[in-house]
Amino acid sequence: MDKTCSVNKTLSRISKKWALLILRELNDNGKKRFSVLVKEMKGISPRTLTKRLRELEKIGLISRKKFNEIPPRVEYELTKKGKELIKIVNYIELWTKKFKVK
Amino acid sequence: MDKTCSVNKTLSRISKKWALLILRELNDNGKKRFSVLVKEMKGISPRTLTKRLRELEKIGLISRKKFNEIPPRVEYELTKKGKELIKIVNYIELWTKKFKVK
Repeated sequence: MDKTCSVNKTLSRISKKWALLILRELNDNGKKRFSVLVKEMKGISPRTLTKRLRELEKIGLISRKKFNEIPPRVEYELTKKGKELIKIVNYIELWTKKFKVK
Repeated sequence: MDKTCSVNKTLSRISKKWALLILRELNDNGKKRFSVLVKEMKGISPRTLTKRLRELEKIGLISRKKFNEIPPRVEYELTKKGKELIKIVNYIELWTKKFKVK
């Protein structure tokens, strides 16, 4: 039972609204500043983005780096764990295409 | 957006309670009768099992075969689409182990 449980949790976490899109944005384009992410992910509110980024950081899929500059700069990046998960998600995407899942 | 959407939907569908366990049970042990599934998946109610089986059948992950026997016999089996999805789920499981995800 336990093994399915951790898989289930992982699936639930990344299937939350915006979570996958954030991960993919960072996967495709590398490090990103918060302000850039907000602009590029059309439709997300800064509040929701902050929330999702914290959740993704908490479960170790992304890392947050703060630079002591004025104005302060914060960059987000996929961790190794996040990168490997995205690879698997890409397999799921291929599967949805192969079987024409909508 | 669309591609992430179909991946998201897939993830939501299979992360529903019991869904993954049913898929795995059928993957590990082949065709199964309803009565056997109920017994082997300890804790699931026949009602919930019926519901999940219908959902999984509807999205093409399992097939249902009814035999005209008395008493009637119904067998469930993974489809090709379901089998390929389970392979990907197994990658997620390896990932959870590698990164000690709980």
